[in-house]
Amino acid sequence: MYKVDLNCDLGESFGNYTLGNDKEIMRYISSANIACGFHAGDPATMNKTVKLAIESGVSIGAHPGFPDLQGFGRRNMSITPREAYEMVLYQIGALGAFVKAQGGTLHHVKPHGALYNMTAVDENLATAIAEAVYHFDPQLILYGLAGSSLIYAGEKIGLATASEVFADRTYQNDGTLTPRSNPNALISNTGTAISQVVKMVKEQKVTSIDGKNISIKADTICIHGDGAQALQFAKKIHEVFAIEKISIALE
Amino acid sequence: MYKVDLNCDLGESFGNYTLGNDKEIMRYISSANIACGFHAGDPATMNKTVKLAIESGVSIGAHPGFPDLQGFGRRNMSITPREAYEMVLYQIGALGAFVKAQGGTLHHVKPHGALYNMTAVDENLATAIAEAVYHFDPQLILYGLAGSSLIYAGEKIGLATASEVFADRTYQNDGTLTPRSNPNALISNTGTAISQVVKMVKEQKVTSIDGKNISIKADTICIHGDGAQALQFAKKIHEVFAIEKISIALE
Amino acid sequence: MYKVDLNCDLGESFGNYTLGNDKEIMRYISSANIACGFHAGDPATMNKTVKLAIESGVSIGAHPGFPDLQGFGRRNMSITPREAYEMVLYQIGALGAFVKAQGGTLHHVKPHGALYNMTAVDENLATAIAEAVYHFDPQLILYGLAGSSLIYAGEKIGLATASEVFADRTYQNDGTLTPRSNPNALISNTGTAISQVVKMVKEQKVTSIDGKNISIKADTICIHGDGAQALQFAKKIHEVFAIEKISIALE
Amino acid sequence: MYKVDLNCDLGESFGNYTLGNDKEIMRYISSANIACGFHAGDPATMNKTVKLAIESGVSIGAHPGFPDLQGFGRRNMSITPREAYEMVLYQIGALGAFVKAQGGTLHHVKPHGALYNMTAVDENLATAIAEAVYHFDPQLILYGLAGSSLIYAGEKIGLATASEVFADRTYQNDGTLTPRSNPNALISNTGTAISQVVKMVKEQKVTSIDGKNISIKADTICIHGDGAQALQFAKKIHEVFAIEKISIALE
Repeated sequence: MYKVDLNCDLGESFGNYTLGNDKEIMRYISSANIACGFHAGDPATMNKTVKLAIESGVSIGAHPGFPDLQGFGRRNMSITPREAYEMVLYQIGALGAFVKAQGGTLHHVKPHGALYNMTAVDENLATAIAEAVYHFDPQLILYGLAGSSLIYAGEKIGLATASEVFADRTYQNDGTLTPRSNPNALISNTGTAISQVVKMVKEQKVTSIDGKNISIKADTICIHGDGAQALQFAKKIHEVFAIEKISIALE
Repeated sequence: MYKVDLNCDLGESFGNYTLGNDKEIMRYISSANIACGFHAGDPATMNKTVKLAIESGVSIGAHPGFPDLQGFGRRNMSITPREAYEMVLYQIGALGAFVKAQGGTLHHVKPHGALYNMTAVDENLATAIAEAVYHFDPQLILYGLAGSSLIYAGEKIGLATASEVFADRTYQNDGTLTPRSNPNALISNTGTAISQVVKMVKEQKVTSIDGKNISIKADTICIHGDGAQALQFAKKIHEVFAIEKISIALE
Repeated sequence: MYKVDLNCDLGESFGNYTLGNDKEIMRYISSANIACGFHAGDPATMNKTVKLAIESGVSIGAHPGFPDLQGFGRRNMSITPREAYEMVLYQIGALGAFVKAQGGTLHHVKPHGALYNMTAVDENLATAIAEAVYHFDPQLILYGLAGSSLIYAGEKIGLATASEVFADRTYQNDGTLTPRSNPNALISNTGTAISQVVKMVKEQKVTSIDGKNISIKADTICIHGDGAQALQFAKKIHEVFAIEKISIALE
Repeated sequence: MYKVDLNCDLGESFGNYTLGNDKEIMRYISSANIACGFHAGDPATMNKTVKLAIESGVSIGAHPGFPDLQGFGRRNMSITPREAYEMVLYQIGALGAFVKAQGGTLHHVKPHGALYNMTAVDENLATAIAEAVYHFDPQLILYGLAGSSLIYAGEKIGLATASEVFADRTYQNDGTLTPRSNPNALISNTGTAISQVVKMVKEQKVTSIDGKNISIKADTICIHGDGAQALQFAKKIHEVFAIEKISIALE
């Protein structure tokens, strides 16, 4: 029997603004990354989403991002490692309070958007975030891009890590994601996307855009939470995983 | 031997802006109420102030306020009890993360500014905040105005409470603070202010503006942290307390 | 021929969050109140919404609100008249810049949400806002609740005003809105709502909840911009107005 | 007779936080760059600072920055030219409203901090900002680093520009500032700094760190507004300029 975690970014509503189908998507995933109020989410949304996750038996992760609501945390900001450490620690604590108040357990941390991308390649930022997670609770699992600086920083400090792969992105020969500037960066066909995932889970391999068979670590798969398509994809992956005998959980 | 806690609002700097003499005043107090990023404070300031408090052996409290940096949390906002619960829980968690990461212990919670004033008289808001504190950690001590709704709400839910009194404010016959609109609301003479405090601590009594001797519970005294005067007052109160055999600590 | 203005709150999206059917509703109204970045709206949304209004031949108004994105400007804040003046002037200028850059003309100002409600009854706040509008441009029209302090303050300072009425709210004998706490506050039947509006426009009268025929000034009608129902209502009111010979424009 | 403009960043207080000696420094400068609420400044501070500038006969400029109060607008953010256009237009409008309400005239625009640095070298961002300024008012003067992309973008679109030089920074052979990473980047000696300025103003030349005599355009000199030293420097430069027959004004 194979195992893989399905994670999704949730709790991204803010005040009067609603985003995503949190309630629906929660039924198809094993881990939720919940926004912490900087790039999305507010205390009310965080409280509600934590409740929903606990009721759904879904593992709860903090999803800290840049303090940039207008840019949804997707715009790079030149911050120091120390600033990264502090903003992540703040957000983990804030989300953790709702988990604690509801008797749940904080399970993991996954940086969001530009912070995710920057810590994938910047060792100093990656180390700072790994430290923030470790200092808050060394039992937390650090989610990051497979093969990234963040995963290495997590391992180095002694955290359990979860290497994340993407169903709808292609990979290059060196195991990195094909940049979005490349026309072949995205996989639009659902069947192809799911086949890629199945291969990654069962063989820990992926076929690069050049046709090479390369190694990849696939502990967790990121599922999009927004749009009707997201829900369809989640359902489809469940069907295929049942056939392929892949159970949805973090090892 | 008598005992009383001296508390001060600290960590009120923000980004490029510095406020208060945190380092100096920390030497004279037993409890610090640290701003949590909504009305003042930012992750960097919180981290630094928590470090300073731990090094100084000062008890650390979360000092949550309204999300109103421009108004410094001093402008009333009409929020629901649920919103109060959520914004306080968020802020306790955020501050608590820095305490936890540094191996310290979160000791108490005291609402700031307009939130302090509103929860002193609004039972529903007071209950919401007491619940937020209790749900985060039932061992936390809730600081509030002596005789206020907040203190009652804390006791009702099972929290330890600390009744706060003011050295530089006069009291009415019913034990409430003389409103600031009254010309006799403030005590400007340091000697008078300290005498009032000594009486409150040793006799649990205060002389009202009408000259009546009334009962008051004085577990903790609020010291201002801003201005050179603040430091002078802190030093003076130490001298008098030494003579009066009042030790500075929470019972 | 009768005339009345139909206004709608638009430009309420923010960053990654979309709210309202601005493009659709723009076809049915004569005036748009565009959010200015405090309670909703951001520079990108403002730019886009101003463009849409100009293309649609719709009059552009600034729609300033409290600096409270999470509360969508619907939570009362205790601000001074001076603070009201400053926050409104700031927001008018910001919106006005996009209008100016696109060669349009700023036409009116209507405060939003809690600021609308507070300035309807608080003379000092109302005067402060009227001053902000007048100081920016004495040719601007001030929109406010019919019979409110804001309308009086506008008239007093020498501004043209537009008295706003609601299709879906009932009125009391003194011409004020029935509070929402009263079960009869809202008119849910579209036919009844439109009949009330027709009467207000043609006779400048409204039937109170007690059945009395009272006077009301109806220069402009507020149309909701959110939800499919809003669009249906806008279409229906157009049909009835065609029959009733009411043209949609500000006199 | 020679002429040069002395400009200073002012209005950088926020809410409860005070920064700078605006009132004092205003006496020694010819142009004030006033923060617009994104990286510093709030509506109250803007209103007050505009008033002070008008009373002091100082030209008023908008000083737009990144929406990053915690970072004081000094942290690079990866924004699109369109976002740059919109955030600058918004801020010019907001500041302009206070100028207009007080019967003053907006004179120039100078981007702040990271936005200043990024638009000095990024042509697309520079063009976007020049457009924002031009669309708001083609009579405005665009302030930017001498020889920068921003100055070229301004000239290209048809704006008057003011090339800014620094008294306390050294220059390289190609006329660019010596990076701060170089130990010789800063001029700490006041006499040397003022001599450099005098040469730049009278000869439009500067001696590079390698000792070469290179051309530089010096329309305006940036004076720091914070700290006691700033005031001293401003006074000293006045004394020397009087002797050197350099009048302080924009040509």
